[in-house]
Amino acid sequence: MIPQPSKLAMVPFVSVENMMKLVNEIGVAEMMQGIATYIEDDFRRWPEFDKTPRVAAHSEEGVIELMPTSDGETYGFKYVNGHPANMARGFQTVTAFGLLARVDTGYPILLSEMTVLTALRTAATSAMAAKALAPDGATTMAMIGNGAQCEFQALAFQKILGINDLRLYDIDSSATDKVMKNLANLGLTLTKCSSAEEAVQGAQIITTCTADKQYATILTDNMVGAGVHINAIGGDCPGKTELHRDILLRSDIFVEFPPQTRIEGEVQQLDADHPVTELWEVLTGRAEGRKSAKQITLFDSVGFATEDFSALRYVRDQLEATGHYQNLDMIADPDDPRDLFGMVQRAKG
Amino acid sequence: MIPQPSKLAMVPFVSVENMMKLVNEIGVAEMMQGIATYIEDDFRRWPEFDKTPRVAAHSEEGVIELMPTSDGETYGFKYVNGHPANMARGFQTVTAFGLLARVDTGYPILLSEMTVLTALRTAATSAMAAKALAPDGATTMAMIGNGAQCEFQALAFQKILGINDLRLYDIDSSATDKVMKNLANLGLTLTKCSSAEEAVQGAQIITTCTADKQYATILTDNMVGAGVHINAIGGDCPGKTELHRDILLRSDIFVEFPPQTRIEGEVQQLDADHPVTELWEVLTGRAEGRKSAKQITLFDSVGFATEDFSALRYVRDQLEATGHYQNLDMIADPDDPRDLFGMVQRAKG
Repeated sequence: MIPQPSKLAMVPFVSVENMMKLVNEIGVAEMMQGIATYIEDDFRRWPEFDKTPRVAAHSEEGVIELMPTSDGETYGFKYVNGHPANMARGFQTVTAFGLLARVDTGYPILLSEMTVLTALRTAATSAMAAKALAPDGATTMAMIGNGAQCEFQALAFQKILGINDLRLYDIDSSATDKVMKNLANLGLTLTKCSSAEEAVQGAQIITTCTADKQYATILTDNMVGAGVHINAIGGDCPGKTELHRDILLRSDIFVEFPPQTRIEGEVQQLDADHPVTELWEVLTGRAEGRKSAKQITLFDSVGFATEDFSALRYVRDQLEATGHYQNLDMIADPDDPRDLFGMVQRAKG
Repeated sequence: MIPQPSKLAMVPFVSVENMMKLVNEIGVAEMMQGIATYIEDDFRRWPEFDKTPRVAAHSEEGVIELMPTSDGETYGFKYVNGHPANMARGFQTVTAFGLLARVDTGYPILLSEMTVLTALRTAATSAMAAKALAPDGATTMAMIGNGAQCEFQALAFQKILGINDLRLYDIDSSATDKVMKNLANLGLTLTKCSSAEEAVQGAQIITTCTADKQYATILTDNMVGAGVHINAIGGDCPGKTELHRDILLRSDIFVEFPPQTRIEGEVQQLDADHPVTELWEVLTGRAEGRKSAKQITLFDSVGFATEDFSALRYVRDQLEATGHYQNLDMIADPDDPRDLFGMVQRAKG
């Protein structure tokens, strides 16, 4: 008889199908709220993490990145691509998968799709940061860029901040139509706008989420009034920004991990020593978040490895109760660990 | 009806079970010979590759590494751990898996176990390098360290260099017994030795492959005679070496990728500017390999990302003919790539 793989050889895998089952069982907004809690918990213990800027392989068409981190007990990484031209070819701009492993043995303990999960964690991070930075009593958000990330942002801000009024604009109006349709009947007031200028009218929060891999100016200086919180999530590569530099000079800027954001974020337009505040310092009370009603706060978000780590931790904690995973025979585990060769030979049967 | 994932969403996955089927169908030695050809082809086009030292997360117990590379058309990376204490706990010291993806879209095209495959590619690389560096007419190899990698090294050297005489030593004699048993009746003359000194007697090639994560002295200077080729594969971490420094000073040293080997290899014992020759230069005729019968050549191998890339390319090229894989639903691929949210909603059925 051919020996069966041991339990150690098996890694729980969450496919796209199982991730969608998980999301629909828990609820999109509820799951983002849960993930936001994990992300915030991990930001609060920031010094415990092994942090490094992501390792990027750039090409003309896009970028492929590995984003590792570790808290000393668990190691995680995400594989993610960003290919702005993909959409026109019928592919996703961003696809991803991720892994958790035990630091003490190096054995993987979770493999998961992360295309859907990245959308959830990005929106959860944005809303979690906005909770600390947006003006009190905010009700209205402008959303510029209505692509794959838009609905997730909308529902995370609704759930976590109570934002019920959305002003939508996209250079491609069919993208806005898609969002209007997907978010109908969810308790949101949706306004389709014909320009970014129109979208920002009356908004206390502005979310920019476009996918061009270039310097773009989605927001100009005159569009941003006093007291606004800007949630800038589209600029996340060297050479890719969304905001006019003058906005940055008027804003207090909050970032995830400065060594990565200086390269990839909106702040790549500024001097390398331009002051920024780290989000974890705000969340732990070491630094102030919003100080006044007139202040412009900018969360210059590029996405950091700990956020994926937190999202994977969340997913892992749901597996047992939901059963939405399969076991993959991914780790060779011979009876005698020195006898890898013998294991291969014995598999001949 | 719940929509089924598209073809784009599917990534071929080679499990441990399928990898063993593949190895046994092709034959261990034949597969290593095939992989060696792919590795050599990729070393010959070395300048085409995007090369970076691996990204390591060190802990007290071991290391977890990501090893990415790209040839501009295909991107690949390996996840690999190295935990010397694992063996005593019934775990593998090294486990691994890897991925290939298209650079133009960022979409994965292969996910594969690499614990078994790493053993094959490491041995294939050693034999491929020895073909260029070992003395002509070599018949005898000393093998110090008889763990999981040993049999693969033996069979690769037999197949590719015609080495039929093996002198085996391990600090744990049961490891040697395991190798003697596994390699019986394969046309090899096997001698169990009671010391490293005894093992190197009459050997033209010395392979050191031990797993201690520390500075060790497996070979001392007096043990290495003129004309020998040393295949040093166990020293592959900062702080982990196998050879006495004096041997290095008498040897011509050949390496894979200097920025990585300077940190991890035997040469970490030497000055940062100590001369080394890159293997790709030897294989393309830009640099000389072995110059004389008396020269000591040392392949200070730490394992490089292109070798994994080559091995994954080889595996991918066998999939269609052998069928030894399964499709994993790993990439979210909505009909409208901007409509990730709608895809999740529609999965409710």
